[in-house]
Amino acid sequence: MSETCTTTLRLKNLGINTYKDAILYIRKDCNVCAAEGFEVQTRVRVNFKGRSLITTVQIIESDLLTYEEASLSTYAWSYLQAQEGEDLFIFHHKQLASLGFVRSKLYGHTLSQNEINEIIKDISKSRFSDINLSMFLAGCVGGRLNGEEIFYLTNAMLQSGSRLHWGSQVVVDKHCVGGLPGNRTTLIVIPIVAAFGLMIPKTSSRAITSPAGTADVMEVFAPVELDLKSMRRVVEKENGCIIWGGTVSLSPVDDVLISIERIMDLDSEGQMVASVLSKKIAAGSTNILIDIPLGPTAKVRSISMANLVKAHMEAISRKFGIETKVILSDGTQPIGQGIGPALEARDVLAVLSCDKNAPQDLREKALLLAGEIIEFSPTIQKGEGVKIAHHILESGQALQKFQNICLVQGGFSEIPKAHHTHEITAVSSGIVSNIDNRRLARLAKLTGAPHVKVAGLEILVKLDHFVERHQPLIILHANSLEQINYALSYYEIESDMIKITEMISR
Amino acid sequence: MSETCTTTLRLKNLGINTYKDAILYIRKDCNVCAAEGFEVQTRVRVNFKGRSLITTVQIIESDLLTYEEASLSTYAWSYLQAQEGEDLFIFHHKQLASLGFVRSKLYGHTLSQNEINEIIKDISKSRFSDINLSMFLAGCVGGRLNGEEIFYLTNAMLQSGSRLHWGSQVVVDKHCVGGLPGNRTTLIVIPIVAAFGLMIPKTSSRAITSPAGTADVMEVFAPVELDLKSMRRVVEKENGCIIWGGTVSLSPVDDVLISIERIMDLDSEGQMVASVLSKKIAAGSTNILIDIPLGPTAKVRSISMANLVKAHMEAISRKFGIETKVILSDGTQPIGQGIGPALEARDVLAVLSCDKNAPQDLREKALLLAGEIIEFSPTIQKGEGVKIAHHILESGQALQKFQNICLVQGGFSEIPKAHHTHEITAVSSGIVSNIDNRRLARLAKLTGAPHVKVAGLEILVKLDHFVERHQPLIILHANSLEQINYALSYYEIESDMIKITEMISR
Repeated sequence: MSETCTTTLRLKNLGINTYKDAILYIRKDCNVCAAEGFEVQTRVRVNFKGRSLITTVQIIESDLLTYEEASLSTYAWSYLQAQEGEDLFIFHHKQLASLGFVRSKLYGHTLSQNEINEIIKDISKSRFSDINLSMFLAGCVGGRLNGEEIFYLTNAMLQSGSRLHWGSQVVVDKHCVGGLPGNRTTLIVIPIVAAFGLMIPKTSSRAITSPAGTADVMEVFAPVELDLKSMRRVVEKENGCIIWGGTVSLSPVDDVLISIERIMDLDSEGQMVASVLSKKIAAGSTNILIDIPLGPTAKVRSISMANLVKAHMEAISRKFGIETKVILSDGTQPIGQGIGPALEARDVLAVLSCDKNAPQDLREKALLLAGEIIEFSPTIQKGEGVKIAHHILESGQALQKFQNICLVQGGFSEIPKAHHTHEITAVSSGIVSNIDNRRLARLAKLTGAPHVKVAGLEILVKLDHFVERHQPLIILHANSLEQINYALSYYEIESDMIKITEMISR
Repeated sequence: MSETCTTTLRLKNLGINTYKDAILYIRKDCNVCAAEGFEVQTRVRVNFKGRSLITTVQIIESDLLTYEEASLSTYAWSYLQAQEGEDLFIFHHKQLASLGFVRSKLYGHTLSQNEINEIIKDISKSRFSDINLSMFLAGCVGGRLNGEEIFYLTNAMLQSGSRLHWGSQVVVDKHCVGGLPGNRTTLIVIPIVAAFGLMIPKTSSRAITSPAGTADVMEVFAPVELDLKSMRRVVEKENGCIIWGGTVSLSPVDDVLISIERIMDLDSEGQMVASVLSKKIAAGSTNILIDIPLGPTAKVRSISMANLVKAHMEAISRKFGIETKVILSDGTQPIGQGIGPALEARDVLAVLSCDKNAPQDLREKALLLAGEIIEFSPTIQKGEGVKIAHHILESGQALQKFQNICLVQGGFSEIPKAHHTHEITAVSSGIVSNIDNRRLARLAKLTGAPHVKVAGLEILVKLDHFVERHQPLIILHANSLEQINYALSYYEIESDMIKITEMISR
């Protein structure tokens, strides 16, 4: 691709974090602006020592920069490994062909494998702006990708990252489609399955907009930022691991797309299927269990959407020679008691330790999922899996395995506690008639989760429970009273996040 | 809408121009970030002295700000009329209901008048981020708005701005759907129609991504930034005016949407119809002539798209009691010789002065359009309009009227000339078989247009012309040799923007 190099500007780091949007900051009176009609929103290519990136121009109208200087957003800066005082080369760039395919999708056309490959390649090379990404996602949403296109997308995403190979015929994995706070079954399922003897190398995500991701919870116990070599060492020794997926670069395009989807609270079923499967196939899995929690405030909100996702997942997996089992679960309320890294870790440890006060819903769900995965083993009959899972949990093997995994990952830590707690009580008595996962997640974030590991909340009631007036509903945990107050001021205007309906007979 | 006020930060102006994207810049260690989980991409509401705006958080990771300070992008700064050193109030904000409607549209649902009103209201109050806007536009594109929805959208856009009323029963207007460089008929049509005696209060746009908008060309002759009162004075005295629409705030939402559409080179026919009609109806027009140039590098590229736009325009106009006539014209090449404000002004003046060397295509098209508009007059027979237009032009009345309009708008200036010109010649002889409007526009921008009024280019050939080797094709105009060279380096890699096909018989 021939492009005209126009000029160089001297790099100065302003340190502006725009997430993944690559921005070039220049002055209006710098030579490229004046001469070439570069202006706000122009897309230009920049080069630094052999690395190249397409950026969006924003104009500095103050003395932050001189007319000979340029800056980059932190993402672009680290992508290019830029250095202060060095020259940045600035180029005109030709319109990306892939944007034509995005346009074509928006106009209702079907995309070919090559066209989807081009789009994903450009996204993986950070050539799409946030606006370009939004348009692509909008083109995928609402059933606009057919089965073939979802397969192409899975394939393209798979090829955009690295791919793991294990020396085992059966490599199992699990994934939850998400949206349910506290749903931390992974930390229970992995040790059970690994103790049983199946290989389960699990990569998890950190929270993006939620109060805790599985990787954040695991990090309460043990390091999770392992490279591929260390991951391999853990899995070879213990059959399983629970690490952060960010360091091993499987399907890197996914993170970029998710960051935009979350902003719009959009879930494209095609994008979801391609995203999950590409990550799991890249991780070397042969058998995958997918959990789709279903509920009005979960990620998947209708049975028709759930069934569509299930059908696509199963069909596309078969094309890749992978077995995928999809189960639909109750997504009407959080699982377990805690929301926030340390509080969820506490629930996990209670279940693994067979503590009588452990949340039963978390325990039962983890056993069910572990049982289904164990049945991927060719020697296990249908219905036997859950019994085996029970036995491994109750005999203490699961706890032992979990501690071993933690130790090999780098250490097994105690769960820390918050400095402050605050009880929220019921203002009237009645029946818990609705629990809003999304607003509870937001409340937990206001206490400081996931950045503050000990922050979050405990939910003391479940749907259909009867509560008395003044009975505690939620305990907030935070490291400062200020944070407790932030959360409380949000709770005040959203106090029906746990809805209590008075009973007429009273 | 109750929202929790969280904290205040002291304002510091960093002067970062992000076009219309409202950005709040804060430090990661400022109290709102740490305490409330505000992070990059979080949408928060800010208040300054009674004015309120929803902004997107970006994080400053350097010492540009202290942890007690905040900054705003230049758009947000001027919207709020912010002042350095004063306190900015920062609030949590509830998710906009209108984003739910955008989502619903993306999932294929039909929107009601109320839902579209909510979306347009939120856009007009700058509550949508660029990502939100992209999603909305993506939902409108590719025939996803039905006739009812386009009517609702027109209605909503109409109500978002001010609306003019004139003391005349017939108020005419013209609009060109655009995409054609040099197509500056407006400056010829308005004086002809005004001299005929019809009221034609014309508001025009400045260039957004093109090398010249009608307002930019008019500004070569006379001031165009007139307020409503001055506009009224011009129209009452001369029957017509040609001013920049930006100062009179008709359909303000439109500019915001167009800025995103241009980035993706997207044209939603529904959005286009609503945008044009809402502006014209807001301007008080009773009879509107719409010109749709049709060609592979024009804005409308297919006859089916053109007919769809035509049908919608006519049907929706009728619902508002307005008569709209749509004509399709040749959009396969630029009109006139000049591209760039001063060079287009020169073409216009040549036509108005009945100069023998005036571009005949511009003259003929302007006469045709003027004739069609004159026939909106109830006393004029079909076919008579163009004859009247001819007479008004040739008798010198049009030139006189144009000069009068300029004088009442604030003065009639001479057309300035560029310091440097450079001829581009044909590398081989043959037939001009293709002219690319888009790349010619880009080339003109590289010389400095529209910011440098005298910059731009002249095209010396038309489609199907025979050219000899070394015959001049283009003359570049610029104020510096550097700018000539920028344009030339672009021309070198895109030299088939004027395609010359050798003839086989030779």
